[in-house]
Amino acid sequence: MRIVTLALIVCGLCWGDGTDGCKPSSLNIPGAQYPCVYPDHRATFRLVAPEAQKVQVKVGQTFDMVKGAEGAWTVTTTPLVAGFHYYSLVLDGVTVADPATQTFFGSGWASSGIEIPEAADGDYYRSKDVPHGQVSQRRYYSKVTGKWRRSFVYTPPDYDAGKTRYPVLYLLHGWGEDETGWYTQGHVDSVMDNLIAAKKAKPMIIVMDNLNTAKPGEDDSIFWARGLQPRPANEAGRGGRGGGLANFSGETFTEMMLTDLIPTIESTYRVLPGRENRAMAGLSMGGMQTFLTTLANLDKFAYIGGFSGSTGGRGGTFDPKTSNHGVFADAGAFNKKVKLLFLGIGSMEGPGTKNFSDQLSQAGIKNVYFESPGTAHEWLTWRRCLNDFAPRLFQ
Amino acid sequence: MRIVTLALIVCGLCWGDGTDGCKPSSLNIPGAQYPCVYPDHRATFRLVAPEAQKVQVKVGQTFDMVKGAEGAWTVTTTPLVAGFHYYSLVLDGVTVADPATQTFFGSGWASSGIEIPEAADGDYYRSKDVPHGQVSQRRYYSKVTGKWRRSFVYTPPDYDAGKTRYPVLYLLHGWGEDETGWYTQGHVDSVMDNLIAAKKAKPMIIVMDNLNTAKPGEDDSIFWARGLQPRPANEAGRGGRGGGLANFSGETFTEMMLTDLIPTIESTYRVLPGRENRAMAGLSMGGMQTFLTTLANLDKFAYIGGFSGSTGGRGGTFDPKTSNHGVFADAGAFNKKVKLLFLGIGSMEGPGTKNFSDQLSQAGIKNVYFESPGTAHEWLTWRRCLNDFAPRLFQ
Repeated sequence: MRIVTLALIVCGLCWGDGTDGCKPSSLNIPGAQYPCVYPDHRATFRLVAPEAQKVQVKVGQTFDMVKGAEGAWTVTTTPLVAGFHYYSLVLDGVTVADPATQTFFGSGWASSGIEIPEAADGDYYRSKDVPHGQVSQRRYYSKVTGKWRRSFVYTPPDYDAGKTRYPVLYLLHGWGEDETGWYTQGHVDSVMDNLIAAKKAKPMIIVMDNLNTAKPGEDDSIFWARGLQPRPANEAGRGGRGGGLANFSGETFTEMMLTDLIPTIESTYRVLPGRENRAMAGLSMGGMQTFLTTLANLDKFAYIGGFSGSTGGRGGTFDPKTSNHGVFADAGAFNKKVKLLFLGIGSMEGPGTKNFSDQLSQAGIKNVYFESPGTAHEWLTWRRCLNDFAPRLFQ
Repeated sequence: MRIVTLALIVCGLCWGDGTDGCKPSSLNIPGAQYPCVYPDHRATFRLVAPEAQKVQVKVGQTFDMVKGAEGAWTVTTTPLVAGFHYYSLVLDGVTVADPATQTFFGSGWASSGIEIPEAADGDYYRSKDVPHGQVSQRRYYSKVTGKWRRSFVYTPPDYDAGKTRYPVLYLLHGWGEDETGWYTQGHVDSVMDNLIAAKKAKPMIIVMDNLNTAKPGEDDSIFWARGLQPRPANEAGRGGRGGGLANFSGETFTEMMLTDLIPTIESTYRVLPGRENRAMAGLSMGGMQTFLTTLANLDKFAYIGGFSGSTGGRGGTFDPKTSNHGVFADAGAFNKKVKLLFLGIGSMEGPGTKNFSDQLSQAGIKNVYFESPGTAHEWLTWRRCLNDFAPRLFQ
């Protein structure tokens, strides 16, 4: 506690400009000194709010900020886990983004973000002097939803100049996120550029779409931010994440993907045809969607990845004969058809995914289990999952 | 006033779901009913903040919000001008983004946005069933700044499938914005897709970079958000927009553009060579940068556009013999060299740009003056400028 107090005093003098070792987060807006991060991963947050009664920062846990000179509220946290964290301020009871950072779409709204830097361990997701692919915005009209939609598409470094056709990975974000997640929070382009330059992964196209898919009149409230906006009185109890996800079939996304997205991609890009050139993966709810879509369409996908999310590992009884409509019942047939079934998780996320992997193995279903050390249900887990998953594709 | 009060009561009953005609802004996060927009362009804003003492919304002017049932603060504005507006909430004295909208980078931070829809007049910037180009993220290393930078690049619909080379327009945002401005607030891809489909504009590549360019150790505080973050005490009075812009030379951006950006683009994309295939334009501070860069490098650019910004029209004495280092002194030579000098402005922005255009004309300098009716220093002016400017390029 004495260290924290001292740090605050020092920071108050030096404006977090690095002289006390607290460096502005790389996600801050230009010129913003706060939030800043210490070498031991503590972070100092600061908000000038002379008229406020109470200010807190929610970054995983909630920290009360303390009012100091000139109405500046500050707090220095305990050490944070490395990687990207969503966070928000609670200003007199209202959850808002910190105006000092760029925003990142998570939990259904434009949240603040802070990056706790890794040392050399994080090199795989940083821009380096290697050939660069690009991430492109692709708008397309969905016949299924009756609306324009948007994907971001990674094409590998040699795509523009060459004539080669490439396999495709469809890669989904998690609950409350959107199609921007993988190329901002996820650093998908740098991860892939570095893997491809090191010849660890085959060059591939990666399509990042939006889970948020509803037909006209269909209830889409599962995708709404919780607690941030008023719900109509007659809709109380509707939607919500917990109950919603348990009943989530993912059928509309699957239909949209097969009807609109895949045909758009395959008629627009130089794509290799067939299931053995098509992979799908996703994180959290996107992993669940991946399992729902692919296991019901094994004639269309040969590679499957769930990063901190799948249809298993959530409790309940797993029975290989009946679970997922019996797709695991004939292990030999499944193993012959599915080139990769990948289950990734952060070590701080609990044993559910490991248990699911073990259950699959006991049923004779080949699968790869990957555990990210020391990380939680956050983007560093998923960057690492992608870094481990992508080299296994299309081999 | 009676109408406003009535609207508030009605809205309180119907949750802005359209039954009273107030439709959620297209820029809201999924499920957010507020802000909503009436057919007469009034907008209702709402924030649930039971513990707050005072809440305001700043959307051009400042409106006090009124606390109602369940701690919900609301206000219905006077009619707003059509198009995109940045806005923010002031919550107990702190300027924050409204958590109910997506954010848009403006004034140096991630601000809220509201779109006041146009009827048929706005069709030119909407996605339609025409061939679509794409907007790609392009990362590159700048030798001039010693940092990685990012451009967004629009390639026309037939780029991927074809072998043709294209001319290039370099298109800049305004003060406090960034490389995302033109493809989010500006709808650059839809504007160009629609123009190209109608054969009104030649297919071209458009490069959208970031004005924020500083060498190591160089003062970049002109790009910082004003008032949103504490300034070190010893830097008081430094930077700021007004004084800063008057002394802004734009030389670092020009050097970076010529050294890093243009070579990156021309070695990456299928680009037609030479000045007659190179245009540059920008809005506000980006228009000023455009004039600074191009007028000093007429051997490299043949088409020049300033949208609500240039080096003229800001008062002071314009002398064609000496202004801009005498580039206008020989009108005949200038007119022969420069294929297009375009000055656009919103009709609500004052007479400065028209005066500059007249001064140029009186000095014999050919120029095109475009005025957007009924719009201010905002994105609808600049969408319209682009829509008028692009068809004049590379003809």
